[in-house]
Amino acid sequence: MKNLKLASRATQEQTIITVGDVAFGRDFVVMAGPCSVESEHQTLETARAVKAAGADILRGGAFKPRTSPYSFQGLGLQGLKILDKARKETGLPIVTEVLDPRDVSWVAEYADILQIGTRNMQNFSLLKEVGTTQLPVLLKRGMFSTLDEWLNCAEYILSEGNPNVILCERGIRTFENYTRNTLDLSAVPAIKELTHLPIVIDPTHSTGKLSLIAPMSLAAVAAGADGLLIEVHHNPAQALCDADQALTPALFEELMQQLRPLHAYVQKLAHETTKNIVTD
Amino acid sequence: MKNLKLASRATQEQTIITVGDVAFGRDFVVMAGPCSVESEHQTLETARAVKAAGADILRGGAFKPRTSPYSFQGLGLQGLKILDKARKETGLPIVTEVLDPRDVSWVAEYADILQIGTRNMQNFSLLKEVGTTQLPVLLKRGMFSTLDEWLNCAEYILSEGNPNVILCERGIRTFENYTRNTLDLSAVPAIKELTHLPIVIDPTHSTGKLSLIAPMSLAAVAAGADGLLIEVHHNPAQALCDADQALTPALFEELMQQLRPLHAYVQKLAHETTKNIVTD
Amino acid sequence: MKNLKLASRATQEQTIITVGDVAFGRDFVVMAGPCSVESEHQTLETARAVKAAGADILRGGAFKPRTSPYSFQGLGLQGLKILDKARKETGLPIVTEVLDPRDVSWVAEYADILQIGTRNMQNFSLLKEVGTTQLPVLLKRGMFSTLDEWLNCAEYILSEGNPNVILCERGIRTFENYTRNTLDLSAVPAIKELTHLPIVIDPTHSTGKLSLIAPMSLAAVAAGADGLLIEVHHNPAQALCDADQALTPALFEELMQQLRPLHAYVQKLAHETTKNIVTD
Amino acid sequence: MKNLKLASRATQEQTIITVGDVAFGRDFVVMAGPCSVESEHQTLETARAVKAAGADILRGGAFKPRTSPYSFQGLGLQGLKILDKARKETGLPIVTEVLDPRDVSWVAEYADILQIGTRNMQNFSLLKEVGTTQLPVLLKRGMFSTLDEWLNCAEYILSEGNPNVILCERGIRTFENYTRNTLDLSAVPAIKELTHLPIVIDPTHSTGKLSLIAPMSLAAVAAGADGLLIEVHHNPAQALCDADQALTPALFEELMQQLRPLHAYVQKLAHETTKNIVTD
Repeated sequence: MKNLKLASRATQEQTIITVGDVAFGRDFVVMAGPCSVESEHQTLETARAVKAAGADILRGGAFKPRTSPYSFQGLGLQGLKILDKARKETGLPIVTEVLDPRDVSWVAEYADILQIGTRNMQNFSLLKEVGTTQLPVLLKRGMFSTLDEWLNCAEYILSEGNPNVILCERGIRTFENYTRNTLDLSAVPAIKELTHLPIVIDPTHSTGKLSLIAPMSLAAVAAGADGLLIEVHHNPAQALCDADQALTPALFEELMQQLRPLHAYVQKLAHETTKNIVTD
Repeated sequence: MKNLKLASRATQEQTIITVGDVAFGRDFVVMAGPCSVESEHQTLETARAVKAAGADILRGGAFKPRTSPYSFQGLGLQGLKILDKARKETGLPIVTEVLDPRDVSWVAEYADILQIGTRNMQNFSLLKEVGTTQLPVLLKRGMFSTLDEWLNCAEYILSEGNPNVILCERGIRTFENYTRNTLDLSAVPAIKELTHLPIVIDPTHSTGKLSLIAPMSLAAVAAGADGLLIEVHHNPAQALCDADQALTPALFEELMQQLRPLHAYVQKLAHETTKNIVTD
Repeated sequence: MKNLKLASRATQEQTIITVGDVAFGRDFVVMAGPCSVESEHQTLETARAVKAAGADILRGGAFKPRTSPYSFQGLGLQGLKILDKARKETGLPIVTEVLDPRDVSWVAEYADILQIGTRNMQNFSLLKEVGTTQLPVLLKRGMFSTLDEWLNCAEYILSEGNPNVILCERGIRTFENYTRNTLDLSAVPAIKELTHLPIVIDPTHSTGKLSLIAPMSLAAVAAGADGLLIEVHHNPAQALCDADQALTPALFEELMQQLRPLHAYVQKLAHETTKNIVTD
Repeated sequence: MKNLKLASRATQEQTIITVGDVAFGRDFVVMAGPCSVESEHQTLETARAVKAAGADILRGGAFKPRTSPYSFQGLGLQGLKILDKARKETGLPIVTEVLDPRDVSWVAEYADILQIGTRNMQNFSLLKEVGTTQLPVLLKRGMFSTLDEWLNCAEYILSEGNPNVILCERGIRTFENYTRNTLDLSAVPAIKELTHLPIVIDPTHSTGKLSLIAPMSLAAVAAGADGLLIEVHHNPAQALCDADQALTPALFEELMQQLRPLHAYVQKLAHETTKNIVTD
């Protein structure tokens, strides 16, 4: 990773990015919510459910990058206002995607974290624009990108003056077709040795399969990830996108009952092992 | 390709896009020039050389999407002015990349064809913006994209009212590492059965190897491509990017001596075969 | 997975395969040892170390499939005799690779588990031959194979009358080059919903990086894997193959101190969650 | 390609392998016939048709490597006898696949060229066994293999004493799903600069689409390939495998009418260009 200046592990200790009550790089942060904001009812219902289950941050898209121009493209400003309402009611900070450099300044007024999607990982204009804000940026890995390219995209943001980059692995494209993409969990320890930036896992878009989300979330904890980004919908059957991969509130709650204890246990285990080694 | 409305083969005959003296979809169009505009001297020298060798259109980047923020990013407006000068002297129309939706309107004043690069194939804001112009758009395939996704990106442009889309296959990402990417030449006949839009081949970025450019250019002709996009530099050793894959003017001239006759021969062969079949 | 008859999840409960004191599909089984048997000293030293650290089974190759014909190809029969000696001393059962259908019958006299390597996953003659024995077969996933193809290879073995197939995910080939292959951990829960056969993870060959082996081993436990296959060498610097990815006995011991407790904890967590759901 | 000794370009001039009336490395060789030998009628009918259209060699499988153990696996010895009969009647030499090292000696009595399939590219026992014969070997590229790995497999055969290896590119596995695999035509010039062995193209298995076979065959000629391996079936609708990708005799004849003239033209073009350069 020869070109990295600011993102390189060598330059500093673990980056800590505080959002609301939690800190990426210190806590295990769970972001959950619908793929897209479809209505006030849908968003508020889901927000209440994920809050009740213990999520830290609400996710939801107001701008949706879709393969076809004829698919639902998101509610735009109206969607952001709905997210704002959900934040006011639940207290959950908001992570939401921005697609266009022209939208960064006003979307930033509604978002607590700006998300850069996988298709825009190398949209350098957009990276530079979010780099001029001080808002945390959730930078998804391109589904076609090496770790080197990904970290250089983080470098684009950092070099504009914004140090608050959170990396998000969301699956890479391979020949395997049982899953939507192939979740590259080895990116977690790899990224931790290459950079000081926190890394979270998106088990939903990577697997694209409801049944794989819980085991991959637990595996992400054990691999050392700093958090998760999970799709939850209060009524998945009626979702306007990704209907077949959103967790119901009940499934999400069940997963949360395992995630926090497992994270605490893994931390304890690592701590004890380190202690043994030091003592030896 | 179920979502396609305007780009589908079913909707119309072959699209013909006239640029200067040539027409994509009718003629075999050769676009050649440097990866990036580095100086007036370099651009004019190269423009004269490709013109002399028989190129139809001058390529050259004023904005360069680079993996690292610390690499040369292009000369911007100054680069466009140099391209304009080269056009005035040689008569060659210009194809040049645009990276940011905010730049489309003014870059369009200098360009005869707007190029959308592989990393921006699914930059939907940019696609919509070039869709509002009537300029021909050279839409490169994402290095990670299926034909379906690519054609849907063309659909984004068409659905905004701009029918002038030229597709450009430039290699896809695979495990093979002898070449920079894997040139998917089968995309040529595949695209021809799926859409009425013309398709050209970029043998430079796909192979990334000087020795493979000529054979792959000839193969592109035989596969039925509508043209080529080739990097030529008057002095490759001093190029600021892609120094090891730009053809010298001499190599380009040698290739051109084979391209045009081969194209004529392939056309004749196809014509005769069709005639035989009709007669039978 | 429409063609599966015997391997399909629908046909039966979890397959349990007992080897020595442990059972795949019931216990968490750790197989460890050198890439190849190089000498009696090396093998016995390593066998003692992995036994002391708590491994269940000794791995070691007497026949090595190598990219080049000029690389070390293994000690053959002599290697098998060394493994036999190590088994007698440590009590550890042996897993070792067989490459040629002509060798199956006599290699079977030395092995407790026959390994089919990634390059031979679709060597159907070999699959049929090991299918005629009753020895457990460790079937590695082809580095290029879909889950469907992999399970059909298991079906080849099962349909010859040998029900004792253990699947082993060892990484698939992608464009990423920081790791040797991309470990597809999502294959664990996917395989568990498709088949009743046990599945283990090879964190060594998949990542090819020493620093990633421990985190990926822990992640495999959390994902629900039935065991691990790990390279350990008593003196990695002098290994004849894979010198830079074998764990030292000390690193392996440290990992083992975390693996067993984590597995117990994950089991407990899953049990409690199920209980809660049943109670609700 | 640092490990190559015998296969390296540096070691000798172009290898010429004579089979019947043609020579790989000198002539453009067309091998055609059914995927598998299904019956005497089917094989003889197809053999007559491809002979009449100008094919040089008859292809046909007596042993079929199939994903599922329950699919048709070929007629075995009976199939070889049918091929022998077709050879006697048409005079066409036979290329047929061998799957098992135990079968090499007796299959060699029927075959003029032994084919190693893509799944067996790294079946080193099989490679060594065919290396002990002097029969030409058609070595297909693994669908997951780099050029380096492929050439090392040729080296396995050469190093056993058999210099007659013909390489066959048949598509590599990528994320694209419109085609069955992605035909890597750039392998042709790449292989020509790396080795002295001839290389042919399989346009059938690579594309898996009837409509793409003719354009990719023409492109292979222009890229400099030494020949083609094409599936033809006298009645594709009734084929036991690959029914939807076999050419009818009529389509094959139409293709042949273009292939030979194109090859002659490309040779002439290359000759003239070289002459011009020499003259300059």
